[in-house]
Amino acid sequence: MYLYLIRHGLAGEGDLEPEADRARPLTPEGQRKTRRVAQRLVALNIQVQTILTSPLPRAAQTAEILKQENLGLRLETVDFLAPGGSYGDACAWLHNWRSLGGGDVAWVGHQPELGGWAETLVWGHAQDRLVLKKAGVVGLSFTENDPAGRALLFWLTPPRLLL
Amino acid sequence: MYLYLIRHGLAGEGDLEPEADRARPLTPEGQRKTRRVAQRLVALNIQVQTILTSPLPRAAQTAEILKQENLGLRLETVDFLAPGGSYGDACAWLHNWRSLGGGDVAWVGHQPELGGWAETLVWGHAQDRLVLKKAGVVGLSFTENDPAGRALLFWLTPPRLLL
Repeated sequence: MYLYLIRHGLAGEGDLEPEADRARPLTPEGQRKTRRVAQRLVALNIQVQTILTSPLPRAAQTAEILKQENLGLRLETVDFLAPGGSYGDACAWLHNWRSLGGGDVAWVGHQPELGGWAETLVWGHAQDRLVLKKAGVVGLSFTENDPAGRALLFWLTPPRLLL
Repeated sequence: MYLYLIRHGLAGEGDLEPEADRARPLTPEGQRKTRRVAQRLVALNIQVQTILTSPLPRAAQTAEILKQENLGLRLETVDFLAPGGSYGDACAWLHNWRSLGGGDVAWVGHQPELGGWAETLVWGHAQDRLVLKKAGVVGLSFTENDPAGRALLFWLTPPRLLL
């Protein structure tokens, strides 16, 4: 089973005012780049069963573009992918998904959560050593026969490798 | 400073006889794919000061193709990149290179050494959790201001993302 962690596309500068910061949409360039990344992923024969997304506009728009380009069959919004979301909730979702025999999945969210979760899923702890650009992709694979349930890292790519 | 760890291209199946195994050259497909990867890296404006390579033919041929496509200005063969090579020697080379103000560099070698060294340079220990395909590339960056000298991982890509 493959898990793709995809950071939202370019959304301009952050805002000091929290509500305005949360509401930032993708820029036109962010939309274009995200669409090209989505198209390239599909051209590489990647299709996931479900795309989960953070509820924030910049992530939800990214996920919507991925869905429009047929990267995933379904789209669902989950709170654990919001900034500051719970790694425990993310793991519980993953555990349940795997126990139900779920297929490949993509999570659209934010830094530093996605990078830290990837490190923890692979190495057991987060050290903030992954550089995950906007519209960048981390690819993790889970094998049935790893009793520890640990993941392998097979991709870490900025959008420039996919454009 | 960027360090690119590049695994040798496709060289066919391993051989049980150690000398024959060491002598395996790149297959024609391995040569083609390696050249396309090299061309794509150059198109992405990547150029290193020096390419270091393992002395084994499948690595040396890979490095020669990278050099022909102008990924690097110089090419040098070093023993520490051979299978079973010393991580201590690799670190000593790197330390010396950085202390002399050396620029970006590419190392062409083998698994599991390259993946394990990348993990150790980034997280401090190797757990064999990186999937590094033949002609795949790991990108590490070293910042001046990290007193621990630890690297960041910014790329892990199989050749398919670069073709």
